Amino acid sequence: MFDVLKGLRIVEGSAFVAAPSGGMMLAQLGADVIRFDQIGGGIDHDRWPVTPEGRSMYWTGLNKGKRSFAVDLRSERGRELCAELVTAPGDGAGIFLSNFPARGWMSYESLKERREDLIMVNIKGNRDGTTAVDYTVNCAVGYPFVTGPDSSASPANHVLPAWDVICGQMTALGLLVAERTRSREGSGQLVEIALADVAMWTVAMLGHIAEAQINREERSRIGNDMYGAFGRDFVTKEGRRVMAVAISFKQWQSLLDAMGLQEKMKRVEELLEADFRKEGDRFEHRAVIASVMEPWFRSQTVDQIRTAFDARSVCWGPYQTFRQLVDEDPRCSVENPMFQMVDQPGIGRYLMAGPPLDFGGAERGEVAPAPALGEHTDQILADELGLSSAEIGELHDAGVVAGPES
Amino acid sequence: MFDVLKGLRIVEGSAFVAAPSGGMMLAQLGADVIRFDQIGGGIDHDRWPVTPEGRSMYWTGLNKGKRSFAVDLRSERGRELCAELVTAPGDGAGIFLSNFPARGWMSYESLKERREDLIMVNIKGNRDGTTAVDYTVNCAVGYPFVTGPDSSASPANHVLPAWDVICGQMTALGLLVAERTRSREGSGQLVEIALADVAMWTVAMLGHIAEAQINREERSRIGNDMYGAFGRDFVTKEGRRVMAVAISFKQWQSLLDAMGLQEKMKRVEELLEADFRKEGDRFEHRAVIASVMEPWFRSQTVDQIRTAFDARSVCWGPYQTFRQLVDEDPRCSVENPMFQMVDQPGIGRYLMAGPPLDFGGAERGEVAPAPALGEHTDQILADELGLSSAEIGELHDAGVVAGPES
Repeated sequence: MFDVLKGLRIVEGSAFVAAPSGGMMLAQLGADVIRFDQIGGGIDHDRWPVTPEGRSMYWTGLNKGKRSFAVDLRSERGRELCAELVTAPGDGAGIFLSNFPARGWMSYESLKERREDLIMVNIKGNRDGTTAVDYTVNCAVGYPFVTGPDSSASPANHVLPAWDVICGQMTALGLLVAERTRSREGSGQLVEIALADVAMWTVAMLGHIAEAQINREERSRIGNDMYGAFGRDFVTKEGRRVMAVAISFKQWQSLLDAMGLQEKMKRVEELLEADFRKEGDRFEHRAVIASVMEPWFRSQTVDQIRTAFDARSVCWGPYQTFRQLVDEDPRCSVENPMFQMVDQPGIGRYLMAGPPLDFGGAERGEVAPAPALGEHTDQILADELGLSSAEIGELHDAGVVAGPES
Repeated sequence: MFDVLKGLRIVEGSAFVAAPSGGMMLAQLGADVIRFDQIGGGIDHDRWPVTPEGRSMYWTGLNKGKRSFAVDLRSERGRELCAELVTAPGDGAGIFLSNFPARGWMSYESLKERREDLIMVNIKGNRDGTTAVDYTVNCAVGYPFVTGPDSSASPANHVLPAWDVICGQMTALGLLVAERTRSREGSGQLVEIALADVAMWTVAMLGHIAEAQINREERSRIGNDMYGAFGRDFVTKEGRRVMAVAISFKQWQSLLDAMGLQEKMKRVEELLEADFRKEGDRFEHRAVIASVMEPWFRSQTVDQIRTAFDARSVCWGPYQTFRQLVDEDPRCSVENPMFQMVDQPGIGRYLMAGPPLDFGGAERGEVAPAPALGEHTDQILADELGLSSAEIGELHDAGVVAGPES
C-alpha cells in the first residue's frame, strides 16, 4: 500500500469485479475508498469461493484496503446519506465510482445539483445501458472459438474474467484523468465506460477486426500453440507440463542452445526449405519443430528444465495449478515484496497482494485486508457527514445504517 | 480520440502488447505519444496477423494515434538522440514509458542526469528482471487448468493476452499517478511493474490464493459453466450457441419467465430440496437446471432467443466468431460511436476503435490510424530537438535516422 494518492476520497457503489477492482487499485495506491453496501451485504457479498463457514473470499479479495459503509438503500434516508457522502465537500472528494445504473438519486444530474464539480465514473454492461457481464461479452467477441484444444468443436470460455479486470483498470485510469482535469480547470464530469466496448477495443487493438475485414479470414483454433511465433506446451519426464516460447530470434537461439538442438534444427530447416530466422516460418512449421523437441522434454524433469533454461535465459514457464502456484512458486510468497501474510478477520491468515506497481523504490506500507461490512459506518457518519453520536444512534435505531455484525 | 490529456508528451520505447497498449490508450486520450523504433522496425513490427503483402495488422492495431521516430539504436548517436528526446524540456514532457531493459542509456539513473524530474515507467517480465511473456506467466498462475472442456485432461491456454492488456492499463495508470505527483510536488520518479506480478495480483484479488491456502482446495474445471452461479452455454435450433447467465435472483427470475419455466423449475427445486433463491444452490444443481432448459434452447433460433430474452432483460449473449462479430453485431460497427471506418495506409480501410471511455459527453474526435514507421522522424528532430534541416539531412546521410519507407 502506497500513499501516492493520499488526499483523494472516492465513494464506490459497486458489485462484482470491474468497479471493485478499479476502486481497490486506487485504495492500494493511497486513496480513501469508501464502499457503500446494502445492510447485510449487496448482491456480491456472499459470492464463491467461500470458506466452510460461508464467508466469501471473493468479496474480501476485491475490497482490500477500502472503508465500508452499510446502509439501507431501500430507504429514502439511506439514499440521502449516500448522496450526501458522494457529494461531501473537500478538495480530493466528490468522486463517485459505480457500476450501478445511473438513475434516480444516483444519476449524474441529480448528484451534480449537490456538488457542481462532481466526478462520476459509471460502468455499464453495454453502451445502451442493457445488461452484460464478462461471460456474455466474452462469448460474443470471438475468443472462445480459438481457445481450448484444437480437437474440440465447441467454444471454450475463459475463466479469468479478463474483460472485467481490464475494465476496472481503465475505469481507474478514466477517474484519474477526470481528477487531473478538475484540479487544472475546476470542472467535474461524467465518465462512462461499457464492458462490451472494453472487449471490442481490445479485439480491435489485437488485429482481429482488421484480419476479419481485410483478409476475410477466420482465425482457427491452434490449441496451446502461440499464434504467429513458436511457443507451445510440452510434457516433461514426470508428466508435468511446461510452456516454451521463442518470439525473438535471440529467444529461439537460446532455446535451441539449451536443448543442444542447434545442429538438428539446421537440418530440419534445410529439409523444409524454411528460414527459421523468421518468426512466421517458425510458426508455420511449429508441428515439425515441436516433434523434434518433444523427446528432449520427455527426458527432463521440470527442475532439470529450469536449470538448463534459466542458464540460457530461455523464455519459459511451468504449468501450475492454483495450489502449485501457492505452494511451490517463490514469486507467489512473501519472498516477493508485493505479498504479505495478512489476517482477514472471519477467514484467516493468507497471502495478500499489494499493488503490482512500485513507486520510486518507496517503502511499501502494509497490505490492508477487506473491511467487515459496515466496519466504518459510524466513523464515516461522524467524520465525513458531521453527525453527532445522538444522530448516529437514531439512524441505527431506525435501521437506516448498520455497523459490523457482532 | 479525446483531448483530455493534451499537453502530455510521452516517449515510448516498446514492443509487443503491454507497453504499446498502455501508450495507445494515453494517445487516444490526447497525449502526444512518440514511439521510437529501430530503423526497419523493432522486434514486433511484422508480427501476425499480416496482410497478404506482409503488413502487420497487429502493429498498426497497437500503435494507433502515436507519432513514429525511426532511429538506429545500435549507433551511439541514435541512442543519444533518443535520450535527448526522452529528457527534452517542457512541462508535460519528460515521461518515458518502456518495456525495454532499463540498462545503459535507458537506465533511470542515466536519464535522470539529463532531466531531474523525469518520470520513467518500466515494465518487466518478472520482478527480478528475468524474461516472462503472457504465455509463460499464464501457464504458471492456475487458469489453464480450469479453462476448456471438463472432459479434457490437459491445460488450456487463453488466447487473449489478458495479462498484457491488464498490465498495459495499469502501466498507464501508474504513469498518471506519477505525473500527478510531479505536477504537485515537482519530483519525478521511476515506476516499475512486472507482468508476473500483475497476474498474481489478479489471482489474489479473485480469491484463488485464499481458496488454496484457507480451504486447501483445488478448483476443478467446469467447462463453460460459470463458477458460483448459474451460467452456461446452450445449443440453439440452428446449431449455434448462446450463453445465458443468472447471477442475481432477479436475473434468474427473468430467465425463467422468458422461457416459461417458472412452474417447472419450482417442481425441480422441491424434488432436489434446493433453494434456487440462493446463488450457491443454482450453481450446485446447474446440471439438472440446464437439462430442464436445454429443450427450450433447442427449439429456438438465436433471433427468437434474442426477442424473448431482450424483452425480459435477460443477461445473455450469442457466441460469435471474430467474423460474426464484425459482420453481424451492431455494437461492432459505426453504429457504436466508439468505432470509425479509418484508412490505414498500406493496409486498407477498416473499423478502428477509439477509447472505450467517454468523457462528459464531449465530442469524440477522429480515430487516428497508426503511423508509418519513421513518419514523424523529421518533424520530431526539428520541433522537439530543435535541429536544423542541414543537421537532419546529415543524420539521414549517416544512417542514424530514417523517414517513412517510400
